Amino acid sequence: MFSAEIIAIGSELLTPTKTDTNSLWLTGKLNEIGIEVKLKTVVGDDETRLEETIKDALRRSDIVIATGGLGPTEDDITRKVSARAVNRELVFREDVLREVAKRFEQIKREMPEINRRQAFVIEGAEVLPNPNGSAAGMSVETDGKFFIILPGPPRENKPMFENFILPKLRERAGEIFVKRRILRVAGMGESAVDELIAPIYLQYENPQTTILFNRSEIEINLTAQDKSEKQADELLEEVATKIAAALGSGVFAINGETMEEVVGNLLLQTGKTLSLAESCTGGLIAERLTEISGSSGYFIEGVVAYANQAKIRTLNVPAELIEKYGAVSKEVAEAMATGMRERSGTDYAVSITGIAGPNGGTAEKPVGLVFIGLSDGTETKSIKINLPGDRYLIRWRASQAALDFLRRTILKKQN
Amino acid sequence: MFSAEIIAIGSELLTPTKTDTNSLWLTGKLNEIGIEVKLKTVVGDDETRLEETIKDALRRSDIVIATGGLGPTEDDITRKVSARAVNRELVFREDVLREVAKRFEQIKREMPEINRRQAFVIEGAEVLPNPNGSAAGMSVETDGKFFIILPGPPRENKPMFENFILPKLRERAGEIFVKRRILRVAGMGESAVDELIAPIYLQYENPQTTILFNRSEIEINLTAQDKSEKQADELLEEVATKIAAALGSGVFAINGETMEEVVGNLLLQTGKTLSLAESCTGGLIAERLTEISGSSGYFIEGVVAYANQAKIRTLNVPAELIEKYGAVSKEVAEAMATGMRERSGTDYAVSITGIAGPNGGTAEKPVGLVFIGLSDGTETKSIKINLPGDRYLIRWRASQAALDFLRRTILKKQN
Repeated sequence: MFSAEIIAIGSELLTPTKTDTNSLWLTGKLNEIGIEVKLKTVVGDDETRLEETIKDALRRSDIVIATGGLGPTEDDITRKVSARAVNRELVFREDVLREVAKRFEQIKREMPEINRRQAFVIEGAEVLPNPNGSAAGMSVETDGKFFIILPGPPRENKPMFENFILPKLRERAGEIFVKRRILRVAGMGESAVDELIAPIYLQYENPQTTILFNRSEIEINLTAQDKSEKQADELLEEVATKIAAALGSGVFAINGETMEEVVGNLLLQTGKTLSLAESCTGGLIAERLTEISGSSGYFIEGVVAYANQAKIRTLNVPAELIEKYGAVSKEVAEAMATGMRERSGTDYAVSITGIAGPNGGTAEKPVGLVFIGLSDGTETKSIKINLPGDRYLIRWRASQAALDFLRRTILKKQN
Repeated sequence: MFSAEIIAIGSELLTPTKTDTNSLWLTGKLNEIGIEVKLKTVVGDDETRLEETIKDALRRSDIVIATGGLGPTEDDITRKVSARAVNRELVFREDVLREVAKRFEQIKREMPEINRRQAFVIEGAEVLPNPNGSAAGMSVETDGKFFIILPGPPRENKPMFENFILPKLRERAGEIFVKRRILRVAGMGESAVDELIAPIYLQYENPQTTILFNRSEIEINLTAQDKSEKQADELLEEVATKIAAALGSGVFAINGETMEEVVGNLLLQTGKTLSLAESCTGGLIAERLTEISGSSGYFIEGVVAYANQAKIRTLNVPAELIEKYGAVSKEVAEAMATGMRERSGTDYAVSITGIAGPNGGTAEKPVGLVFIGLSDGTETKSIKINLPGDRYLIRWRASQAALDFLRRTILKKQN
């Protein structure tokens, strides 16, 4: 399997606001033909560091792709430094100059003198035409390695890479197909998941398994490669099935779906409707559900009952209940769910009340304490959880726990 | 001036979908104290490449910051490889283990055996406590260079960097103060803003001005540097004041505040309360407002009236109005606002109804058509807007426009 490195060149990519996105697209294209990106570098117009970066990359990896720094100005150092890194001269090419000049004719502007610089190319390089800009790309073979230099703007480097580089790499890489699959787990920690599934994934070198922790869930990434797409898919299916079985109902997605998609699909499949009564999450659960196009098929109504008066007036929570147990309590959570279901007439109503912090916590009811209620017309039940994190995370995790509670309830009814 | 390099560690950062964002925030913080980032690397769980990267960085630059790969699993190689790169041993620290164990107690989970790995630290390193996770950070001084190792999640590495690293670096970096200020503009395009303010900012080399377009607003970034913090602040104040005057009420933030903060502050200052009736934004406006701690001081209640029945039943919108004009109409938007204000008794009620897409648009009422209503007890008014973008962007921009409508209304009443 070929290894690749990507070098993004440009001082603007070393500021706090700009990020290199070319490498994401290039990585996708390389992965598809079974080439793995092993390292990415961002370097500015610093000649020493750039030269060292190119040399190191060509020593370590089979394919090196550099993007950017091919403009006509003084700080565009890619041509000069790349030539030095591969120990070759820059040569002036009359035919490349004609292409640059043609480009200026097209946009009806006179070619400034400094654009002559763009007609210098590395000795022996294949020149890659650029129909969308004045900077030509280059492809150099050196000591069995491929060194590819592309302009920075995506609309210039994408067609160049697809038309001139990809076919060549595909030919060399041979018939390898790489496929990815993501499983998602709720309500378990990273290490607990790892303990359960390590005995499975350690048996396989292919697919490769990576475990990540997100805001409120564990993500299991599987990457398989094989000579056909079908075989790669079969490998993924085999391991995904085993992992899902080991984790049981903790797995909520076996194909990269989000929690709101999974819950939405379950509601659609079972033909059920939902309403929400939110306090501490302030509309976040409704917002997540309605981010999905088509959610009007099952989501009917939500109430953000932030003030106690709103809980009493719109959700019919008895004032005495709030007085006796407090707004953050099992009793109020359940009354909110019942009241919401009665108002909306939906099959399910989910409620949530808690302390998102940073203020408002007490010894008895600390920040992170959350009650989730669920009413389905037959019964109203609730769970109590304690969530770690700051306000943002507590709200996010509370929304995830509420959706997961609903998911598990629907699944139980199906069985 | 000190030079820095940032190394992001994690195979997931070499996939087509994930990008390293930690380095942007770190760059901002380093720039503020006059430290320039000269190179960034992303490397996976490849021991050879990672070791080489760390060694190269420490040879070239004064400060090297590595993020990620400090988890408890087999593929978290940062501890091991970093120790090797600086030629030191990993040592087991009982006190660090106690912190890891404490973390699990807090979240009421049993500590799995593999988390013991997180108690190994590089010999002679300063250990950086992590109140938000189980991975401790490390700071190592080697041959006059600073090598800092931080966990990957922003919520863990940000406080660690700000509390333990930044003060130390600031002391070494000496007396250069770089300060930033962000102004935010709603309801104007990038070129319109530039035309109005270019005559101002072109007069100044310091502060530097950058204009960026975000999801729904123009951001004007000012960066000033001077020998004292006070002088840098004065420079910023001078230019910010001139720019704000040129843009008038279009500027909603002169100090980086978000729209929800600005609106929340206006409500607090004027002692007014708010309720919301959302359709197409599905709870997003309520979610944004309640993300702010203390929002219960002005936000009372929200209704996500997604189905027409919810608009009729909970907001008292006459069914005939929906039938005659459609749910996405000026008439229904205004009835929603009036109904919501009557239900909640708040000073203001804001409503929103629109077509977020991708489906549901017609020639007459295309995707992106949004009506925003506002009732203040004396009158109910509305605006109609057409928003470009996908479902996500339309919803976001609609929420921003609704908050901006409220902001302008409150400001007008003040004058």
